[in-house]
Parts: sequence; C-alpha cells; structure tokens
Amino acid sequence: MKNISILGSTGSIGTQTLDVVRNNKEKFNVVGLSANNNIDLLEQQIKEFKPEAVAVMNEKKALELKKRIGNSKTNVFHGIDGLVTIATLENADLIVTSVVGMIGLIPTIKAIQCKKNIALANKETLVTAGEIVMKEAKKNGISILPVDSEHSAIFQCMMGYTLKDIERIILTASGGPFRGFNKDQLKNVTATEALKHPKWNMGKKISIDSATLMNKGLEVIEAKWLFDLDINKIEVVIHPQSIIHSMLEYKDSSIIAQMGYPDMRIPIQFALTYPDRIINNYKKLDLLEISSLTFEKPDLNTFPCLKLAYEALRVGGSLPTVLNAANEELVELFIQGKIGFYDIPKTIEFILEKHDVEYKLDIDKIIDIDKWTRNFVKNILL
Amino acid sequence: MKNISILGSTGSIGTQTLDVVRNNKEKFNVVGLSANNNIDLLEQQIKEFKPEAVAVMNEKKALELKKRIGNSKTNVFHGIDGLVTIATLENADLIVTSVVGMIGLIPTIKAIQCKKNIALANKETLVTAGEIVMKEAKKNGISILPVDSEHSAIFQCMMGYTLKDIERIILTASGGPFRGFNKDQLKNVTATEALKHPKWNMGKKISIDSATLMNKGLEVIEAKWLFDLDINKIEVVIHPQSIIHSMLEYKDSSIIAQMGYPDMRIPIQFALTYPDRIINNYKKLDLLEISSLTFEKPDLNTFPCLKLAYEALRVGGSLPTVLNAANEELVELFIQGKIGFYDIPKTIEFILEKHDVEYKLDIDKIIDIDKWTRNFVKNILL
Repeated sequence: MKNISILGSTGSIGTQTLDVVRNNKEKFNVVGLSANNNIDLLEQQIKEFKPEAVAVMNEKKALELKKRIGNSKTNVFHGIDGLVTIATLENADLIVTSVVGMIGLIPTIKAIQCKKNIALANKETLVTAGEIVMKEAKKNGISILPVDSEHSAIFQCMMGYTLKDIERIILTASGGPFRGFNKDQLKNVTATEALKHPKWNMGKKISIDSATLMNKGLEVIEAKWLFDLDINKIEVVIHPQSIIHSMLEYKDSSIIAQMGYPDMRIPIQFALTYPDRIINNYKKLDLLEISSLTFEKPDLNTFPCLKLAYEALRVGGSLPTVLNAANEELVELFIQGKIGFYDIPKTIEFILEKHDVEYKLDIDKIIDIDKWTRNFVKNILL
Repeated sequence: MKNISILGSTGSIGTQTLDVVRNNKEKFNVVGLSANNNIDLLEQQIKEFKPEAVAVMNEKKALELKKRIGNSKTNVFHGIDGLVTIATLENADLIVTSVVGMIGLIPTIKAIQCKKNIALANKETLVTAGEIVMKEAKKNGISILPVDSEHSAIFQCMMGYTLKDIERIILTASGGPFRGFNKDQLKNVTATEALKHPKWNMGKKISIDSATLMNKGLEVIEAKWLFDLDINKIEVVIHPQSIIHSMLEYKDSSIIAQMGYPDMRIPIQFALTYPDRIINNYKKLDLLEISSLTFEKPDLNTFPCLKLAYEALRVGGSLPTVLNAANEELVELFIQGKIGFYDIPKTIEFILEKHDVEYKLDIDKIIDIDKWTRNFVKNILL
C-alpha cells in the first residue's frame, strides 16, 4: 500500500490521479489533498478518500470547508504553509505535485527534504529552479517521476539505460489549437479560442501555454533537468495526432518511442506504480483508426515562445526563472482578456533582455527574481 | 573482446554483420565463417578477418577454397558437419545464425548445446522447431538474441519488463512490393518483380516471403517462441514506410515502439553488443523527411500466406514445420519460374490439410516431417 498526497487535487491532473487511485484502492491510500479554492470538489474528495489532512490556499475557504466537514477526522490547513504540510505528511510515501505554476516550488523542495518521492506534474518547478531541485533530490536519495506525458514517454523509453547511452530526445507537440495559423490570424485570437485544445483536455494555464508553444518550451527546460541533458540533445517536432508522446534516440541510431491515445491517466498511473505496470481499462491504441501519424517542423517565427525558452535555457542562470514568471503573469492577463496573444512573447522577450542574469542562485534568490519579474510585467502592462 | 562465428557470412545479414565487426574491431573478433558456395567472397572475408575456421556447404567448392588460401591458418570444413563445426568452435562466444532456411536448425541446436549465445537471424529455425530450440536454450542457460528488425524492436521495447507485463505485440510489415495489388494483378507476377522490395535490401528467399506476406507469418511464429507469447497477443499491421520496426503494448495501455531507417546493421549491432549500445555513424532518423507514417490492415484475402501461418501456429504441433518446409520449396520453384505466385499459398494450404498433425516432436521427427513435406511438394508440382 502506497500512501499518496496530491497537491492540486481538484485540478485536471489531480482529479485524474484520484481516478487512478479509485481504480486501484488496494494499492494506494490518499493521506493528503490540497486545492486552491474549489472546496466543493475538495469536500467530495474528502468524503470519498478520507485523507488525514487537506489544505486550501484561500484562508476563508479553508475555514468554510472546516465548518462543512464538521467532526470529520480530516485536518484542514491553509495557505502555502498548509500546502507544505500536505507535501511533508509523515505517512506520505509519494507526493503528486499537480499544482500549476512556481507556487509548487517550496512544497516540492520541502517534500524532497523530507525524503518523499515526487510524481512531478508541476513543470514550472523544474523550469524555475531545476538545478537546485535535482541536486536536492540526489542529496536526499529520492526519485522524481515525471507525470507530463512527454517526460513520462522519455522515462519509459530509457528503461535499462542511462544518460551516456542517449544521443538525443525528440519531444512531440500537438501544435495546439492554432497550428497552421499565421501572425495576422493570431493577432486577435481570444483566450476562449486558445482554450479549445484539439487533443488534450487540460487546465487553463497549460492550454494557453500549449497555444503559444511555451508549454513545449517549458518542457524542453524540464527535460534538461530531469534527464541531465545537454540542450543540443533536445529537439521538438510537431505531431498533430498526439499519439507518439515523445521519442529517445540512443547512440546506436535506434529510436524508442512511447505511444498511446492522449490520456493522462496512463503516465499518472506509471508514476504511481513505477517500476511496476498494472492493468487498466483505458482505450487501447488502434493504429488503423489513426491511419496516419504526421510530423512538421515547429514554426518558431509564428510561435516565438518556444524559441525564447531555448534561448533562456541556453543562457541559463536566472533567465528561465524570469521566462517562467513573466509567462505565468502574461497568461493570466491573456485569460482575463487584458492583453493580446502576441503580448505574451513580446513582453517575455523584452524582460529577458532587461534582466541582469544571475548565476549564483538559491531558493530565496529565485523567489526574489520571480517577484521582480511579476512586478515588472504588471508595471509595464497595467 | 567477443569472439564471433557467422553462419552464412556471404549473405545479406552475414555481410552486414561483418560490416558491424569492421567498424568495431576492438570489440569483436571473427573466429568462424561459413558460406553456401560463394567462395570468392568468403576468400576475401578470410583475408580480412582471419578466422580460425570456415565451412562451405558444397564440398567441391570447399576443396577449391582450400587450394586458393594455400597455407593460411584458416581451416576449411564442408557440408552440414562443417557448419556444425563453425557453430561450435571452442573459442566462439556468440554464433550469428544468418543462413537461410531450416538448414540452420541442426547447427543452432548444436551451438546451444555447446552453451554458445545465439544472434538469431535464421527465423526458419524457430518456425520449424521453436519449442525445442527455446527449451534447449533455457536448459543451457544461453541467450537467443533476435536479429530480425521486428523482433529486435520488440526485444528493445521490453527492456526492464517481462512476459507478464505484456498485453500484445504489434509486428509491422512493409506490405512488400505488391501492396495494394489485387488477385488478378498478382496471378502473373514474376520472381523478378517480387525481388524488388521497396524498403529493405534483402536476400532472395526473404524478399519473396515478403512479397507473399509469408515473411510476416514466419515472424509471428518466431515471436511466439522467442517471447513465449500467446498467439492472440500477436498482431500484424501494414506500415509501408518501415520506420516503426514493431511495437509492444504493456498491460497499462502504454505502447513502446522502436524506430529508425530500415538498416539491418542497427539490430545486428544490438544483438552483438547487448546489453550495451555503442555509437555508430548510421543515418539518423529525420521525421520531417518522412513527414507521415501510415498504417493499414493486412489484406489476408489477397495475401493468404499470413493467414495460413496463423492457422498453422494455432493448430501447432508439426504444422508450422510443414508450413515452413513447403514454403521453402515453393519459393525456390517460384524463383526458378516453375510455378506462379498463387501456387505458393494454394499448395501450402493443400499440404496443411493433407498432413496428419503430430504433437510429440523431437529434432529427428521434425527433420522427417520436413523431408516428407518437401517430397510431397515436388511430387504434386513437378
């Protein structure tokens, strides 16, 4: 029996993680859950999974939830301290980090320091502080198991081999809802249009990132840290069908790919059961139904965010932190309808140029730079 | 340093194996070679690789070769006994069985009994006597490493897992030179047309097998024994680009595929270096060059050989032996222009029905049944 805490249990990955748990009650026990403010769903989850403790970011909502669940045995915490409590519960064996954004950084670091294994769905943590997080993981002897479908694919393709055997990895990208659009067509697209992802059913932030191709950029950075790869060994190819979730080329010219219908429960389950594979009833891939898998070069001119992510990673230091923080703020402003599609890459490019890159980083410094970036975005745009 | 003997060193797989050795002289040492009757090429190979011993099937040719190489240190043997000598050389660590047809059976069995690891490119051995060969391998604690690109793909996709984790395997087939043809178009095709394979450069026998889809049928039977799979877990899909060499579905609905340009040196090298992967300069896959991978259902009505192979495997016992022996004879007759394309499946079907299936088999019995089948084919067709 594996005891699991889920940070962000009411989101897309969180609910799908609970679906995996629900189908394997003899294998997994939920000890902790956390939500941003959706206490209606969290209340249902408490009734179903009876965790020891939950956390709600919003303090008022936390108090309301406390009243609602009455004398249940589940303790209710709040704020970032509450999130850290859930991430470090003594009984927890594995922490699923499915919160969105760099808010996941502190709880993830604390969980690692408490020697919890991590099922990582919070890519911003590695984007903003990859080197530090991976060092902490190594120091504490814990595993960081990727949940992102692309990184899970690479992880699965690497079985039995190590970094020294790898020639390159090829991350696939669906291309998002605006694949094939030109710059003129993209100028006036709205968040509503951007949220209609053709292949994956995901949360808002990642859907917008997918529409700008920043999601793939963040994944390139995530892959760099997760697999300790040189940036020149990480390629991106557009694969609209989203059937091949990513590929790995070994140095003997042999490519291993991981495939399936787009269903996040497959990589989630693998992170939960690793190294075991367990049976499920998810739809089996029928290649005759698909009939054709296609590949295109990413259009970096129309979708500059992917290029910006590569540039930030190439320079390194604090630049990925700036890229990520600026992107988080800009995506939020785009969702609110306050800025246009191209304000996202334009503003990021501007800030990356303004920022004096720092190379000696610790968590406090990263948090400072993150804050500086967010303020900078607000100051120039609002 | 690994000492290698190659059975069938002048054929397509044999010469490509020597190419891999040539590129890795610090890793491999050739101790034995064998040819059917191409002593010109064998003589060159002796000069280059200086094996301890060689064998030539044809006795006269063996004597001629002996004269030609004069007082070289290489011993020359002949006939099936010569082949067995090469397969069991005391110094050999790994035997590459790249002869064509069930002629490979006895040397393979003898090599296994002398505890040599096998790089298996001779699929007919497993088709005709899979159960016995795999039992001998297990008993003698040796590895049978697949060289066929499809089986190497499955083997590579299985890294870290075992039979119990596998839901199914999907063998890919190019469809051969006659993909899309109908029965009328196929009635009068010639061996010359059949030998023009669109994707792989191979020997004659396998090229004809590929044109009839019998090659895929033999591979289904080979996979059954190699991976100890239930027949219902082995599927075939037509994939004309021959980029995905085969796929494996785990029970958690995750599919792992092995990919690359069609270059047999990749699976050959992997069988030679397993479990290591070593660098080479073979062409790296460029998915943008390929742009599209397509999949079709095999047309069993137009290409009945694949269906016949499944049926022979389903019934089991001596039926795959009969299927294989009849096919070997019929392919030879088709190459000689003595029979038409559809005489191959028609005659096989007829013999499979005529044959009284036997279930208690040993090597002698298999050789008897093989002979009976070949005579039967000659009697009814010549």
